[in-house]
Amino acid sequence: MLYFEDLAAGQKFHSAEIRIEADAIIAFAAQFDPQPFHLDDAAARGTIFGGLAASGWHTAALTMRLCLSSDFRPAGGIVGVGGELSWLKPVRPGDALRVEIEILETRQSRSRPGQGLVKIRITTRNQHDDTVQTFAPTLFVDIRPEPG
Amino acid sequence: MLYFEDLAAGQKFHSAEIRIEADAIIAFAAQFDPQPFHLDDAAARGTIFGGLAASGWHTAALTMRLCLSSDFRPAGGIVGVGGELSWLKPVRPGDALRVEIEILETRQSRSRPGQGLVKIRITTRNQHDDTVQTFAPTLFVDIRPEPG
Repeated sequence: MLYFEDLAAGQKFHSAEIRIEADAIIAFAAQFDPQPFHLDDAAARGTIFGGLAASGWHTAALTMRLCLSSDFRPAGGIVGVGGELSWLKPVRPGDALRVEIEILETRQSRSRPGQGLVKIRITTRNQHDDTVQTFAPTLFVDIRPEPG
Repeated sequence: MLYFEDLAAGQKFHSAEIRIEADAIIAFAAQFDPQPFHLDDAAARGTIFGGLAASGWHTAALTMRLCLSSDFRPAGGIVGVGGELSWLKPVRPGDALRVEIEILETRQSRSRPGQGLVKIRITTRNQHDDTVQTFAPTLFVDIRPEPG
């Protein structure tokens, strides 16, 4: 369990891999992002993606799951207020995704005395080591409780 | 169908509402964001959320679905490279969400001659008119094909 005081710029954390299959890509898209290039490989061929690709929101949601299974375990959970999200490359059926989390900056919170603010960058890569997504959120992380 | 030439800064588009229920919040979280405050109301009471709240990624995914059911229908679909994402207020069971999409800026693409770049801001609001999320992505939108 990592408290605010345990975190410093430059630290890196990693996850295992997760494979994303065509049926999961299609099921997610049917629920949240029903566009031809996320639903059907043949329909996707004539589009900007050139073949079936995961919704960016599916990649983002899987990235969250990978973060929670990584060695980055902040006290109070992984709770963010948002940040800059970039999709750099399509995610394809059969891709194996993993994340690297880097601490960019830590600072005290003025509004929440029991917590600090931690800016991180989450880089999501595929099995070819291509970066498919980056997300740079600011998190709230609990300060270590005083003993006693 | 809206082509790049049809879009101009200041235009606004709207969706209908969608209700988010506790069982959907829990099912999404179990798959992608299994933290106590997204899985169980009792467990959430002692956390920063003070009660069951949707994963921010669930809000983001529902926002995508709302955009696709809105009157914003760009040619080629809604395809973005990312942008600044902010979660401003928790989304609770029973909330009814809707989006407003505003065109912020349009410009020609140098790398993709058949497309323009359109920066938008998507504001997701609940039934109390509170903004729960904003996302400001840049989209690729097809240029109107030449006749003949």
